[in-house]
Amino acid sequence: MTKKNFPLSDVYGLLEPGPVVLLTTQRKDKPNVMTHSWLTMLEFEPPLVGCVISNRNYSFAALESSGECVINIPTSHLQAAVVGCGNTSGRRTNKFAKFGLTPMPAKYVQAPLIKECFANLECKLVDADMVPRYNLFVFEVLKAWIDPKMDHAPTMHHRGSGAFMLAGETITLQSKMK
Amino acid sequence: MTKKNFPLSDVYGLLEPGPVVLLTTQRKDKPNVMTHSWLTMLEFEPPLVGCVISNRNYSFAALESSGECVINIPTSHLQAAVVGCGNTSGRRTNKFAKFGLTPMPAKYVQAPLIKECFANLECKLVDADMVPRYNLFVFEVLKAWIDPKMDHAPTMHHRGSGAFMLAGETITLQSKMK
Repeated sequence: MTKKNFPLSDVYGLLEPGPVVLLTTQRKDKPNVMTHSWLTMLEFEPPLVGCVISNRNYSFAALESSGECVINIPTSHLQAAVVGCGNTSGRRTNKFAKFGLTPMPAKYVQAPLIKECFANLECKLVDADMVPRYNLFVFEVLKAWIDPKMDHAPTMHHRGSGAFMLAGETITLQSKMK
Repeated sequence: MTKKNFPLSDVYGLLEPGPVVLLTTQRKDKPNVMTHSWLTMLEFEPPLVGCVISNRNYSFAALESSGECVINIPTSHLQAAVVGCGNTSGRRTNKFAKFGLTPMPAKYVQAPLIKECFANLECKLVDADMVPRYNLFVFEVLKAWIDPKMDHAPTMHHRGSGAFMLAGETITLQSKMK
């Protein structure tokens, strides 16, 4: 287990830049993974994340029935898996096998962590009231993991129609913003 | 007026990568601008955007009373304004004057466009039901503008505590995802 605990108070800094994520679910004994980028922070701590998951996605039913997921953050070395998971459905495909992703047991949820992702957020569904109107699931992050070895590879940011922006340099400014 | 119409069907491609935005409001005759990055797409077309605006922000009351805003997307040449607008409050500061931002009249809303931003999204509040629980405002984008001259400068992506990731190169992959 190369993954280290990551402080829940710092989770917003992983998601606020807007990376594409790989969202894993578990339904009965079957794990699945989907490519996802319609999400926003809703609260700092405990971290609340709002994820818009279309009911056309196979993961939708797994989220509703299990009330759990893991938000995994990939970097550009996983670009084939990111696109592949977005192009296929868990209905017909074992995406972990097909795209070379390794499921790892999570601590608090049944959905697996993806070993190859540099950060993994174990999430529990805490509010489904906005699912009927916007497919908006509100998750609380229960546990966050980071792989120190991978955290400098560029994240991927979806621009649509196959275009992905890769994270560039980070600058530090005199900000009072959290 | 150097800004050109931008198709509403393509708006998601501007926001999905996760750039920091400058959100402008107008209350009575007084415009204001805040730095913002807790937002997500909720629907493709007409574009719906969910923005989490803390009720501690001066813009909160302007949003509630006017039901309008403009989401302006800055690039790194505006980094001083992005941080400055995040460090100050419209209660005490005319941020446009202080940070060298030029307000321009919008077509459908009272809130101004920011001339120096490469994209500007005129927004109408369409759903405030989630404001009490999450400070989540749902806006419909009525009109989108782009400045073709600026659209290759890197956007800024907030990592917290003064750290901003600057957008890097864009790659194109064989994606079936919209």
